[in-house]
Amino acid sequence: MAGTQRYLRYIIFAIVCLILLFFISSSSSVPSANWPTYGSPDTVPSPQPPKGAVGDSTPSSTPNPANGLPPATAAGDRMNATFVTLARNSDLWEIVKSIRHVEDRFNRKFNYDWVFLNDDDFNDEFKKVTTALVSGKTKYGKIPKEHWSFPDFIDQDRAARVRDEMKEKKIIYGDSVSYRHMCRYESGFFFRHPLMLDYEWYWRVEPSIELYCDIDYDTFRFMAENKKKYSFVLSLYEYVETIPTLWDAVKNFTSAHPEHVVEDNSMKFLSDDGGKTYNHCHFWSNFEIGNLNWLRSKAYVDYFDSLDHAGGFFYERWGDAPVHSIAAALMLKRDEIHFFNDIAYYHVPFTHCPTGESYRLDHKCHCNPKDNFDWNGYSCTARFYETNDMKKPEGYEKEQ
Amino acid sequence: MAGTQRYLRYIIFAIVCLILLFFISSSSSVPSANWPTYGSPDTVPSPQPPKGAVGDSTPSSTPNPANGLPPATAAGDRMNATFVTLARNSDLWEIVKSIRHVEDRFNRKFNYDWVFLNDDDFNDEFKKVTTALVSGKTKYGKIPKEHWSFPDFIDQDRAARVRDEMKEKKIIYGDSVSYRHMCRYESGFFFRHPLMLDYEWYWRVEPSIELYCDIDYDTFRFMAENKKKYSFVLSLYEYVETIPTLWDAVKNFTSAHPEHVVEDNSMKFLSDDGGKTYNHCHFWSNFEIGNLNWLRSKAYVDYFDSLDHAGGFFYERWGDAPVHSIAAALMLKRDEIHFFNDIAYYHVPFTHCPTGESYRLDHKCHCNPKDNFDWNGYSCTARFYETNDMKKPEGYEKEQ
Repeated sequence: MAGTQRYLRYIIFAIVCLILLFFISSSSSVPSANWPTYGSPDTVPSPQPPKGAVGDSTPSSTPNPANGLPPATAAGDRMNATFVTLARNSDLWEIVKSIRHVEDRFNRKFNYDWVFLNDDDFNDEFKKVTTALVSGKTKYGKIPKEHWSFPDFIDQDRAARVRDEMKEKKIIYGDSVSYRHMCRYESGFFFRHPLMLDYEWYWRVEPSIELYCDIDYDTFRFMAENKKKYSFVLSLYEYVETIPTLWDAVKNFTSAHPEHVVEDNSMKFLSDDGGKTYNHCHFWSNFEIGNLNWLRSKAYVDYFDSLDHAGGFFYERWGDAPVHSIAAALMLKRDEIHFFNDIAYYHVPFTHCPTGESYRLDHKCHCNPKDNFDWNGYSCTARFYETNDMKKPEGYEKEQ
Repeated sequence: MAGTQRYLRYIIFAIVCLILLFFISSSSSVPSANWPTYGSPDTVPSPQPPKGAVGDSTPSSTPNPANGLPPATAAGDRMNATFVTLARNSDLWEIVKSIRHVEDRFNRKFNYDWVFLNDDDFNDEFKKVTTALVSGKTKYGKIPKEHWSFPDFIDQDRAARVRDEMKEKKIIYGDSVSYRHMCRYESGFFFRHPLMLDYEWYWRVEPSIELYCDIDYDTFRFMAENKKKYSFVLSLYEYVETIPTLWDAVKNFTSAHPEHVVEDNSMKFLSDDGGKTYNHCHFWSNFEIGNLNWLRSKAYVDYFDSLDHAGGFFYERWGDAPVHSIAAALMLKRDEIHFFNDIAYYHVPFTHCPTGESYRLDHKCHCNPKDNFDWNGYSCTARFYETNDMKKPEGYEKEQ
């Protein structure tokens, strides 16, 4: 009797222990949910740990661990998003500066992928160095020839004459063929590259940019949750010599496809006379966070095809900045375009540095407010505020 | 009887549960020791969270959280160490670039303090911006007049004549008074500033420097555990016009104080003829990680006082680099001086970028190997390797 009792006691004890163990082990994982967690390979692809670290170092060298500390990675799922960069192998040491800024200020906490596109094959050095620095997966794509060449409907002699004329007029990149292929590619093709078809959101990064404020939230998620489709940090007036007939081409498109022009658009940002003429305001597209499905939509593709056949990418020197900007301003609702005031940004020669000292301190910005371009007479950002009935940030007058 | 048995069972069960709880809870904390932990304010002073973040933002602005994510901070205690920077208020936007590099590559994981020294009072903007960016405590000190002026034993007319002569000879900073005060201060006083007396280790940082590799271990702890007292990343030859009589002054000191010159020193680094003449090799002191107690030792202070009275800081233009370097080479044992090969560093116009691709990839370096100065004919780093019988890193010949 006492024996069976002892057995009973053991069984009860064992069961309770198991329950207890389960309870304690599961409950102990709860607090970690309030802290950043180290993303599992499933949700956050992390780079391959490099091999043979200390082995390669000299006898005197210090024990710098190869894999390093895991970054403080934000909890939660990720959006279907990627960084995208158009670069040549020769841009390597300039693009790595941009990668460090993007990783240090934002991506080390979110580990998003990075797609590199090139009209040539990337070499091993480019791939190895960039893969070592990006916290997400890196992918390398070659641009198909038909997206980086003269379409058959372009008269190449006429295009050559234009380049000579523009060279004489000393128009920047006026005589460059590759710059025109680049502008056309960014305008109409990058979002259709096979590597980009996997994604819904993109953040465009150019070589040698700088970011000055910490970005501690998921900018892609912000775009999605706030129904944004396109965004910018700097805006300015385009050189009129590069787009003399762009607005006519746009008007031809809108009259042929009125269904693609939305109500409550941002025409006020583009035109001072209700659309008769273009004021040359555009969002500076070397920075963009945007929605790829919008660029892949019938509306945008119809728009690009129409402009492409007008020939201005080669007979003039249309930039992808006004092309994207006009599309966003006419085919997206006003409130689908976002100004990322908190993404302090530099691309030669302009800086966006948020207005207001307390704002800069709160966001850990290290830009010099004197460099801020927002309220300069050549910036269109004040016009964006007015177009959207937004209150300008406190103290902007002092920074004009 | 059954009642007492039940009570017994409960008591046994309760005890076992307590033991079990203690066992599980204590053992569950073991793995966390292998992961970075978020340093408690006791061990790792963290900056004040900024106030009124989103309050100041415009209606359109994004919800960038003011406090941000906690950084991945290395576990364990910290050394008694600080960064130290000599700067003017006008250097603010240059020093913040350096702070970002130091924080991003190293200090966000270790949160060491930062002492700023100035011959004038720091203004509020300087203090607010730097405090917002440094992950450790920041301290701001004014240099006492007697450490930033002509000592009474200096003939100021003679000093003025020298500056005029050097200006005619176009010697860099040859006509500058403040540069001379700076060199003298860095040579003999910064380590005695009241704010520095709290610390045993320092890392000197100048405005506009860059760091290119991730540093994932505590460099101060490395110095202590490996009995290092002084360190460098770049070495070169000094302009002879700025130190014509420095070596004579050193020889006067060593003959007056032979007890301060140690066995197994680095004379071979300084001289090709056993000490008769100086080859002008020195460690570039705009980067230094070193031991403050050594600089505060009788040996070093005797050395500085002897040089100071020789007058060369004002009658010539002695730099703190050769002054520190000669002291380290003669008064420290060879193996107390460390070359931080893994701290890739830029200070105009020179770069230290570690030799060997796999080494750079393992340490996440983004410097261009072509910029590495180590094996350039004007560098003394090869000589340091030879002085210390160290094997040069693999592939250094290819980078010569």
